[in-house]
Amino acid sequence: MASQSSSVIFPRVIIIGGGFGGIQLAKNLKNKEVQVLMLDRHNYHTFQPLLYQVATGGLEADSIAFPLRKIFKGQNNFTFRNACVLSVIPERKAIETNIGEFYYDYLVIATGSDSNFFGSKELEHYTMPMKTIPEALNLRSMILQNLEESLIETDPVKKAALLNFVVTGGGPTGVELAGSLAELKRHVLRQDYPELNMDAMNIYLIEGSPVVLGPMSPQSQRSSREFLEEMGVKIMTDMRVSHYDGNKIVLSDGNEIVTKNVLWSAGVKGEVPGGIPLDKIARGNRIKIDEYNLVIGYTDIFAIGDVASMSTTDYPNGHPGVAPVAIQQGQLLAKNLIRIINKEPPVPFKYKDKGSMATIGRNKAVVDIGKIRFQGVFAWFVWMFVHLMSLVGFRNKLVVFVNWVWSYFSYDRGTRLIIRPFNRKSMTEDTQTK
Amino acid sequence: MASQSSSVIFPRVIIIGGGFGGIQLAKNLKNKEVQVLMLDRHNYHTFQPLLYQVATGGLEADSIAFPLRKIFKGQNNFTFRNACVLSVIPERKAIETNIGEFYYDYLVIATGSDSNFFGSKELEHYTMPMKTIPEALNLRSMILQNLEESLIETDPVKKAALLNFVVTGGGPTGVELAGSLAELKRHVLRQDYPELNMDAMNIYLIEGSPVVLGPMSPQSQRSSREFLEEMGVKIMTDMRVSHYDGNKIVLSDGNEIVTKNVLWSAGVKGEVPGGIPLDKIARGNRIKIDEYNLVIGYTDIFAIGDVASMSTTDYPNGHPGVAPVAIQQGQLLAKNLIRIINKEPPVPFKYKDKGSMATIGRNKAVVDIGKIRFQGVFAWFVWMFVHLMSLVGFRNKLVVFVNWVWSYFSYDRGTRLIIRPFNRKSMTEDTQTK
Repeated sequence: MASQSSSVIFPRVIIIGGGFGGIQLAKNLKNKEVQVLMLDRHNYHTFQPLLYQVATGGLEADSIAFPLRKIFKGQNNFTFRNACVLSVIPERKAIETNIGEFYYDYLVIATGSDSNFFGSKELEHYTMPMKTIPEALNLRSMILQNLEESLIETDPVKKAALLNFVVTGGGPTGVELAGSLAELKRHVLRQDYPELNMDAMNIYLIEGSPVVLGPMSPQSQRSSREFLEEMGVKIMTDMRVSHYDGNKIVLSDGNEIVTKNVLWSAGVKGEVPGGIPLDKIARGNRIKIDEYNLVIGYTDIFAIGDVASMSTTDYPNGHPGVAPVAIQQGQLLAKNLIRIINKEPPVPFKYKDKGSMATIGRNKAVVDIGKIRFQGVFAWFVWMFVHLMSLVGFRNKLVVFVNWVWSYFSYDRGTRLIIRPFNRKSMTEDTQTK
Repeated sequence: MASQSSSVIFPRVIIIGGGFGGIQLAKNLKNKEVQVLMLDRHNYHTFQPLLYQVATGGLEADSIAFPLRKIFKGQNNFTFRNACVLSVIPERKAIETNIGEFYYDYLVIATGSDSNFFGSKELEHYTMPMKTIPEALNLRSMILQNLEESLIETDPVKKAALLNFVVTGGGPTGVELAGSLAELKRHVLRQDYPELNMDAMNIYLIEGSPVVLGPMSPQSQRSSREFLEEMGVKIMTDMRVSHYDGNKIVLSDGNEIVTKNVLWSAGVKGEVPGGIPLDKIARGNRIKIDEYNLVIGYTDIFAIGDVASMSTTDYPNGHPGVAPVAIQQGQLLAKNLIRIINKEPPVPFKYKDKGSMATIGRNKAVVDIGKIRFQGVFAWFVWMFVHLMSLVGFRNKLVVFVNWVWSYFSYDRGTRLIIRPFNRKSMTEDTQTK
């Protein structure tokens, strides 16, 4: 039990969360004179960028998740605990979890973000978020269950509600989800449901701003919009959801859409553990940190990735909530922790923007890399390559690759199965075990 | 809507269940002058022989399931409904389901079998069955959750209970499950849980009869027992479970084993829908049928596969509950239904026994084909080939093959993830949606 014995001599770094940031940090502390303890409510790392493919039957859940214990196999100064963190107790350098208390010399909060319903209990209850694998599987089940139900529904309004799909939020997640639904309809459902008039199935994408893919280049915004419209997605920009009661959505312009399928990708907020004082919380419920990822006002509590808000001259409103930021912060913080332990001055964080990309459908993607922008088939292959390579584990790369090649040539999706039928009750349970 | 229009003219065959038998029957009715309506509580076909690999993290659930709608893509006289059958009402030629009533000209019950707890509510509540994909996933979650829990358990007795695994029933399922657990321990968990003393993890196999793999040849029984013992499985034959309270198992010889992991594979019983009179039910809760698969006393209700009990001169106590019986009965019944409709005499069923096999671990399997019996590496490859070929769908074959090759060379298992944490409450839910 290396970690135990070393705990006698080496300072203990507790990392809350096994996302992109937490993993990079722990990996970069390998063979360093610290004891690393990682806590996560899941025993696996989730590759969130591909959750939408799990939700739409393109990939098995298991191929975008990776056991955390396995990632750190053979790293002697690493220990993992499957636990939910309840609260941080800075004055005692302790954290309280559902499996007991742990004491840290240095604490790193890498808890990421969760869906933001902007305070609306109604939207939180009735819409479907997609931030975790159980949520993506619920979404998959709900989509298929509602299609099955539409076959036996005789009331035309209720039937329409089952066949109208509304995706809220025109960011990468919303765009990729809407595109994926359009392809599911076009290539798969037509054959699966010969009895069903597929033209009765509508896919709406609702975005509050004037454009989709706001953070990307005007070219990418334009062509992603064109791609989506080609694929039959009805895009509504400058539009918001005012109300949703589970059957009918009321839009900010007063129009209504009857639907039982509202997919929520309209916003995220930092998932801050209890015990962090309110004055440390910035916009989007993110923890205020300095350029060394140190939480303002502390000398031993750090935050990285989506849950952290670091405002610099280049990013006055904080950095974007994307994997590369978390990864680069994790890598740097590993170095800085060692420097701090050795009484050396830490190095300030500087984000290297590698660019951004989104995929809309087969042969349809958009890529911005600095001044270079391209769209279409080549962009799509670049998107696939980058995502394939970012997957943890050779087996996952292999299985996802096999699935993608298979789908590309067969126009088919492997996994349109209702393994756990979705119901609101189970949803509230999942929110406890997300 | 071909099925609808044809319903005007052609007799309607309702098939309850999309298992091996139901699928064969429906396929063989393609282009015949009947309307086929299949009902299943799942929207997918489950390849039950590989459930144990899902339970032990070897395979994704999605790769041993196949969407039923897709199997019958393009079969114009086929309709599918995702429904639970509540009751058969022979006098009205109707069945009652959770989505309404359906009327048949010919009804085929192909509902298969479910775990048999021999009337013990205690065993039903506390042990883990493995007949459906949700159950296999619960089992996977429970195994991993209890390992995690054992790390933080300080009470030695409670720790032992978390690390003792008891498999009940030495049939193929029990043997394959015990073997798979032994390999998981040997090749995977040792590295995943360096803190854990793996020798504290015990795997017991409890069998009521004097031998494991009762239906197979003495050679196969002997070598499978040897294989299991080599792999460290503690086998107890002539032994039964008297009591289990969720923490401690009491055996028929009075001995006790503290364990929180009891895997139930000790027996099955036919899953007979409501409305079938008790006098039609034979041993093992199977429906009595004649050699034409006709339920005794009816002219329009048939039963095939595990749920049916046909006693012939070769099989006075009914046929074995294995896939080949269901498949052959489904194929023959398709022919016989057409003959009956055309007022021709039906052909009696004759089971062609293709032999039986079981796998214990890598390079370890046993095969009986008539008088030919062999064990070991070759048997193991035969087992893999036969199972790979029996999987529905090229994509599933491909993904399973990739996983098996990967595991063989890496000694690893891909999917040891707790995606839906298991708790007793969720279990009772799953039993409703199995």
